[in-house]
Amino acid sequence: MSWPGRFVPRARERRYFSTTERGVFVSQVSPGENGLALAGSSSAAMRAVYADSALIEAMLRFEGALALAEAEHGIVPLALAKIINDVAGSMTIDREALAAQAPAAGNLAIPLIKQLTAAVTVKDSAAAGFVHWGATSQDVIDSGAMLQARSALQVLLDDLAKINAALARLASEHAATVMAGRTWLQHATPVSLGLKAAGWLHAVRGATGKLEALEKSLPLQLGGASGTLAALGEDGDVVTDSLSRLLSLSRPLLPWHAARQPITDLGSALALTTGVLGKIARDVSLMMQNEIAEVSEPRAAGKGGSSTMAHKRNPVGCATTLAAAQRAPQLLATLYAALVGEHERGLGGWQSEWSVLPELFLVTSGAAEAMGTVLGGLEVDRERIAANLLADKGLSMAEAATFALARRLDRGTAQRIVERAIKATRGSDKTFLEALTELSEVAAVIEPDVLATILAPNAYLGRNSQMIERVLKDYRDSVKGKGVHADD
Amino acid sequence: MSWPGRFVPRARERRYFSTTERGVFVSQVSPGENGLALAGSSSAAMRAVYADSALIEAMLRFEGALALAEAEHGIVPLALAKIINDVAGSMTIDREALAAQAPAAGNLAIPLIKQLTAAVTVKDSAAAGFVHWGATSQDVIDSGAMLQARSALQVLLDDLAKINAALARLASEHAATVMAGRTWLQHATPVSLGLKAAGWLHAVRGATGKLEALEKSLPLQLGGASGTLAALGEDGDVVTDSLSRLLSLSRPLLPWHAARQPITDLGSALALTTGVLGKIARDVSLMMQNEIAEVSEPRAAGKGGSSTMAHKRNPVGCATTLAAAQRAPQLLATLYAALVGEHERGLGGWQSEWSVLPELFLVTSGAAEAMGTVLGGLEVDRERIAANLLADKGLSMAEAATFALARRLDRGTAQRIVERAIKATRGSDKTFLEALTELSEVAAVIEPDVLATILAPNAYLGRNSQMIERVLKDYRDSVKGKGVHADD
Amino acid sequence: MSWPGRFVPRARERRYFSTTERGVFVSQVSPGENGLALAGSSSAAMRAVYADSALIEAMLRFEGALALAEAEHGIVPLALAKIINDVAGSMTIDREALAAQAPAAGNLAIPLIKQLTAAVTVKDSAAAGFVHWGATSQDVIDSGAMLQARSALQVLLDDLAKINAALARLASEHAATVMAGRTWLQHATPVSLGLKAAGWLHAVRGATGKLEALEKSLPLQLGGASGTLAALGEDGDVVTDSLSRLLSLSRPLLPWHAARQPITDLGSALALTTGVLGKIARDVSLMMQNEIAEVSEPRAAGKGGSSTMAHKRNPVGCATTLAAAQRAPQLLATLYAALVGEHERGLGGWQSEWSVLPELFLVTSGAAEAMGTVLGGLEVDRERIAANLLADKGLSMAEAATFALARRLDRGTAQRIVERAIKATRGSDKTFLEALTELSEVAAVIEPDVLATILAPNAYLGRNSQMIERVLKDYRDSVKGKGVHADD
Amino acid sequence: MSWPGRFVPRARERRYFSTTERGVFVSQVSPGENGLALAGSSSAAMRAVYADSALIEAMLRFEGALALAEAEHGIVPLALAKIINDVAGSMTIDREALAAQAPAAGNLAIPLIKQLTAAVTVKDSAAAGFVHWGATSQDVIDSGAMLQARSALQVLLDDLAKINAALARLASEHAATVMAGRTWLQHATPVSLGLKAAGWLHAVRGATGKLEALEKSLPLQLGGASGTLAALGEDGDVVTDSLSRLLSLSRPLLPWHAARQPITDLGSALALTTGVLGKIARDVSLMMQNEIAEVSEPRAAGKGGSSTMAHKRNPVGCATTLAAAQRAPQLLATLYAALVGEHERGLGGWQSEWSVLPELFLVTSGAAEAMGTVLGGLEVDRERIAANLLADKGLSMAEAATFALARRLDRGTAQRIVERAIKATRGSDKTFLEALTELSEVAAVIEPDVLATILAPNAYLGRNSQMIERVLKDYRDSVKGKGVHADD
Repeated sequence: MSWPGRFVPRARERRYFSTTERGVFVSQVSPGENGLALAGSSSAAMRAVYADSALIEAMLRFEGALALAEAEHGIVPLALAKIINDVAGSMTIDREALAAQAPAAGNLAIPLIKQLTAAVTVKDSAAAGFVHWGATSQDVIDSGAMLQARSALQVLLDDLAKINAALARLASEHAATVMAGRTWLQHATPVSLGLKAAGWLHAVRGATGKLEALEKSLPLQLGGASGTLAALGEDGDVVTDSLSRLLSLSRPLLPWHAARQPITDLGSALALTTGVLGKIARDVSLMMQNEIAEVSEPRAAGKGGSSTMAHKRNPVGCATTLAAAQRAPQLLATLYAALVGEHERGLGGWQSEWSVLPELFLVTSGAAEAMGTVLGGLEVDRERIAANLLADKGLSMAEAATFALARRLDRGTAQRIVERAIKATRGSDKTFLEALTELSEVAAVIEPDVLATILAPNAYLGRNSQMIERVLKDYRDSVKGKGVHADD
Repeated sequence: MSWPGRFVPRARERRYFSTTERGVFVSQVSPGENGLALAGSSSAAMRAVYADSALIEAMLRFEGALALAEAEHGIVPLALAKIINDVAGSMTIDREALAAQAPAAGNLAIPLIKQLTAAVTVKDSAAAGFVHWGATSQDVIDSGAMLQARSALQVLLDDLAKINAALARLASEHAATVMAGRTWLQHATPVSLGLKAAGWLHAVRGATGKLEALEKSLPLQLGGASGTLAALGEDGDVVTDSLSRLLSLSRPLLPWHAARQPITDLGSALALTTGVLGKIARDVSLMMQNEIAEVSEPRAAGKGGSSTMAHKRNPVGCATTLAAAQRAPQLLATLYAALVGEHERGLGGWQSEWSVLPELFLVTSGAAEAMGTVLGGLEVDRERIAANLLADKGLSMAEAATFALARRLDRGTAQRIVERAIKATRGSDKTFLEALTELSEVAAVIEPDVLATILAPNAYLGRNSQMIERVLKDYRDSVKGKGVHADD
Repeated sequence: MSWPGRFVPRARERRYFSTTERGVFVSQVSPGENGLALAGSSSAAMRAVYADSALIEAMLRFEGALALAEAEHGIVPLALAKIINDVAGSMTIDREALAAQAPAAGNLAIPLIKQLTAAVTVKDSAAAGFVHWGATSQDVIDSGAMLQARSALQVLLDDLAKINAALARLASEHAATVMAGRTWLQHATPVSLGLKAAGWLHAVRGATGKLEALEKSLPLQLGGASGTLAALGEDGDVVTDSLSRLLSLSRPLLPWHAARQPITDLGSALALTTGVLGKIARDVSLMMQNEIAEVSEPRAAGKGGSSTMAHKRNPVGCATTLAAAQRAPQLLATLYAALVGEHERGLGGWQSEWSVLPELFLVTSGAAEAMGTVLGGLEVDRERIAANLLADKGLSMAEAATFALARRLDRGTAQRIVERAIKATRGSDKTFLEALTELSEVAAVIEPDVLATILAPNAYLGRNSQMIERVLKDYRDSVKGKGVHADD
Repeated sequence: MSWPGRFVPRARERRYFSTTERGVFVSQVSPGENGLALAGSSSAAMRAVYADSALIEAMLRFEGALALAEAEHGIVPLALAKIINDVAGSMTIDREALAAQAPAAGNLAIPLIKQLTAAVTVKDSAAAGFVHWGATSQDVIDSGAMLQARSALQVLLDDLAKINAALARLASEHAATVMAGRTWLQHATPVSLGLKAAGWLHAVRGATGKLEALEKSLPLQLGGASGTLAALGEDGDVVTDSLSRLLSLSRPLLPWHAARQPITDLGSALALTTGVLGKIARDVSLMMQNEIAEVSEPRAAGKGGSSTMAHKRNPVGCATTLAAAQRAPQLLATLYAALVGEHERGLGGWQSEWSVLPELFLVTSGAAEAMGTVLGGLEVDRERIAANLLADKGLSMAEAATFALARRLDRGTAQRIVERAIKATRGSDKTFLEALTELSEVAAVIEPDVLATILAPNAYLGRNSQMIERVLKDYRDSVKGKGVHADD
């Protein structure tokens, strides 16, 4: 009896997942026949969740649990249900046969159930008669996909927790690291690197929250041939209850064979995740340009080199993440297009999900792992940040000057004065402060040293500190709820 | 003084929206220069929400409210703020100039604010100095977009309420209208039309729920030049509080200039909506095929005809809806791609949202309006439904026979018997019942009249009634909460 | 010396590819760690082209040929170049190491070249100094991808040739099989099944033509670090010439590191291919619905069954094809999005192509293989086709009646008469012919037997035969050019 | 008689289009009810092509020409055909009615033909009987779309010609403006700004070539109700010939009601165009960042300012272009998804094209116009380019040093020496040249002054000049063929 230990209540299962292994749907994955492209674009942990062996195991687990659930209601004799569950938990699947028969069968479930039935027959032919009782192929495929999705979400949330912790550290450490704000790729008024990190954190936390909620609500699929559970007669609902409990999946109001919101909800959360990580990668890679050089991906041997240029340090983590962010929106679109399924089970849409949802998890995992590394060891050059901020001779403080003057004169006059000072700055070696000081209208209303204070970037940060603090508090509160150290 | 009445608390505003006019962002829209393509793919109400005049009004409303919010905190003298608000609420915008200046300015806000400032100057030049005080273009554009989105969501939710009511009626009336279930576009075990409608209802309600939640949480945008609210000094947060209240928008933790989850959340809910409506349209149009003819879009003069074939009745409502469902996933993908914005304000991504979010609302409105009409008057041919179900001579009851026999014999034997009976049915004029009855193994364990009962489609509906009832209860509960009659 | 035989001129290479093996980039692929999802959605031949081993081989082949090309111009001593080429053609790559180092390196080329260099060093340390001389990672990755694409196109064109031949047969055999034309999923005027097949054929040939043209023009990539070929000094162009010749790739005007039209051109042709195949699958699956039953996918043991319903025959080939057609447009969109690369080599876009182009080839191969089987053995039920056509009592001949009457009376009158006859037909048991005959205005201008002829569907096929013949002639001409029997 | 003059042979038509007006499908477009969003994202010329009035005119033109074509073959009396054509060319359409009736009719053609028939009736009731004779709605909609597409392509090609000329100038003028090559957003070996421009030019020319080819081959649509042209009896083909000639559209082998390659071909060329323009916009906006500042969009009053920051100069042309490039891939995906149409005329796919193809043209026009302005006046700062190149103290010449040393020593040794020199450079104030010079292994094989020459960026440009010259020659040859000055 190999499996009963797995059908533990959710809480214990989670604990098990937090040990070295990540639960049941984890296989050793080596770069196989189609693995090299994945190697650079996904995490090893996620590849394990979506390995063929894990796919098979998830489906077999459904079949074992189905028999046990039916035994609870007297549909399958308990002894036979246990045999089915045992065989499902221990048998070896002939993958070659599976792959060979899948195209004609139309899905993997049919040949898999055949192999399972044959294996159960060897143990007990009476038990074999109860394999897959009352279910349809889509039940096992969709429920298996939800079991894999749960493992996948856990893998992802682990990586996101690291990212969030790293971002919280950056937000805190650099709350006063004043830097050039940049809009439309041009210097705007100053911000702090801490605020930038807080913005990233808040965005990633938005995605994290969605993933966490989904991880807790992944639905069981059980509908039988047409979604009425007819083959289970009166017992359709109670079997659904039991099976939901055994698999720790949520109990849907209806089977969702042709109502795919659970899939599009997952897709949206994953595409949001790659999107917000992609935004961070875009920012980091822009700040890492030679002429800007404010931050850098952490150095490591063999990292970011070139096959021909010895001086190169490429932002490879950002590249992986940006590539994921290029892919995710379109993978998502395919999932949404599949909502338009035909009748009680569609033709083409559902089938396209089989590859697309795993791929979306895989590319998201690659982005999360890469940004975990990038942000966990981000190198920050405070001097360069300060130098870049000042390199425009103070022109990015034009707004500060305008508002200071507008409070003393009228605004139209203030704007005209500032525009003259900008022109004077651009056309000479003067700083913006010097150019302003030289103007008599300015001198008339602001003392030079007051003006200098007004034009100090660190005096023009608005609600920078409060904003950072709000985000950090929100983050710390969320982490507290989970009994984890925020600074891990 | 035309506007103060508009800045009413949320509750009154909602009531106002439930009267004939739909609130402030509604304009009379005639097929203008680029309106004909929209005419067939969107609702008039939604076109009004996204008319140029409504876009302008939304932005002007922000500017008026901003001044009032700042007056609450002593930043702008109250009398001047009122002037700004009055002018914003009553001035006429030169749209030609707006359109002409927008490309060079990079957005509509800059030339709009110029016109507003000029108009305020005419009234009071001191007031003009406080127009747009402390805000940036993106603040007015994004907040305006949220105000339009609120109106748009209300328009959509009205149409969805009609659809949900129509579906609830269909689910209830046809709970016992047994019909062929269809999977992979082939007859499967029977369902009821009521269950089909219940499945549609549950799916549409999933989308409705998301839209309702979003309608209540659309966030204000206010960040100033780089998102720090620096120009408002210490008052950035309190002004944000006041402005959120005045515009009845939710108060975000941070400005979201470069963190676009509010947009992708809207997009996801809209694409889900078109997807589930598209699924209904797919089903209805398939059932309306000449050879199937189980349901039909409601007849109306001039509806669904052909320019050359007098006999034609095309499913035009379904076509509009399916066209929307073709577009939505890709529009959504563009919104997700825009998550990857640069620094404090992006280049290209944000700008692409300006067209894409309105378009997504527009095509969704077209689908909702079309399916409201289709489902509100759906013609059902019960006789044809029954005839189609029986046309395969009972073969779709093969599963029922298998399970009945498997309960009496073993399952392998049951399967072999059923397969023989299927062959006999296909190779002769016999029905499946006759073919089964003739087999001695069957006769040995089931009396003919019992077998006839077992093979009656209406006896093999599983949890059909309970499922329908669950969905209807869930729907009625939701409607009760809103004080609306479910049968409206 | 294992490889020189491979560097034959194009003509011989093609012949080699037409034997049992499909050229060099073919590996034995078994369902590996991530293979099961692919098993049902791609052809085995295409999986072999995109197996890890083939990916590695393509890159090694580039490195071997690069050395030989450089030897032609005295850059690398010929003896050393031969050693590099030999080692590249015979060495065993440690894939685990490759996969492990790829993420940090940013691509597969860097660790691959390290392994190659180490292996060459074992043979001759002087030769090792010339490995990858003057090239950059992207050169080997892109050129390798083009070599794989060539094999992939050949695999695809083989399957498409079978489809085209099957369609030509159907077009020819069923030129006079009159059937209901269907527009907006409603009966329109009649067509023939042959014309339908001819339309499919013409569409597939459009895609085939694009793929053939691309197969002949896939470009070499060679640009060196920044696309100037600086490391090759004066010899950059002549080495490019030689290498193009050795690899039978076309010689581009410029390196295309950041100008990705070769990729989007491939993508467009592949998405067109899945689209036109998807259209056929949509039509076949619709015609296979129980109530229509005009055609059927070929029967085969274990094909299209259900895990629970013994009577089921699912259109599994169509499902595979439609799933591919769901995916291809979005995969294509990702390739187009990647056009926007940064400077001399992009960040994110190029990297996303590594997975997306292979996937697009894989899903297209699945569609082509599936439709080859479906169309090669399509079962046609002529009686059912005729019965469906007549089931509407002749109403779909309304246009024919209108035009016949309009030629004798005026058109407005004709339209009013036909509308009355349609109403009479719908409201009674009469056929449309009977209803028309009974109208005195009709009797006044058309003899009953003439009217019967006019309303005979096979008399109202317009240019059906000529259209079919044009398409078949075009097809036969194209096949003749290749020395292949059209009826193969 | 207003129209016959329009049915001129192609050559004259083109000339006509090259005058101030752009041919028939041009209307005065003012920012109407839904025009403001378009104002910033499309060119005025393209908005005119896709104005409602132009859409109507294109359809009416088809109807007029259809009558004339049928008159050529005695189907319609010539005098009546001329009346139809005259009325079509001069009547005023009630757009309100059109828009109001379109949703129920399912398309614009049906109500339009009603209005046309009524207007012809006023002139001659006999003529009215021949309006739209033998055609179906899709014939007029698709053919009208092709007529609009031709105008649209001409508008686009005009803008692209300006871009190509500007790029040729840049390529030529800056062939020797050495600058930092950048890969993965990091300095690589040097290139020239001229080569960069040549790469852009070559890419834009690839797109231009596709658009030019399509402009010459846009197909007529004429198939009648089901694509057999049955209503025209024996004359279907000859009428098609005549009508193709009259409308200057190409004559397709078959009607393409449900074979949409003409649309996907257009879409691919347009998405390629926005993609390559987007790539240029990405590069320009990156080079325009404050810290890089190598190029700048041309200055103009009111251009690129901020609503609050007086110092701002935003790359607004690049933003418009990048927004277009964000949208185009997804619009393209929708067109490809529409390939999967049902039977003889689809449900949902075709209908989605009505909005998507115009939008794709519109956003592409916005990108082309914006980049025409940007590139036509691009400001280049040669000093800054040189300074940025040298700011890394020569490290980007590491490859040059490696190859120089590898030619004198062995490559492994060369690599180790260069890595030591890189470290020394990074850890001190020394330049890379100084660091290398100090190493005895280097001094032993290269004289200091020779080394200085080797490390001069302008000596390490490989085939820079030849590549530029090839592209320019290719461009000049293409322009010569059109009798246009390359430097226009």
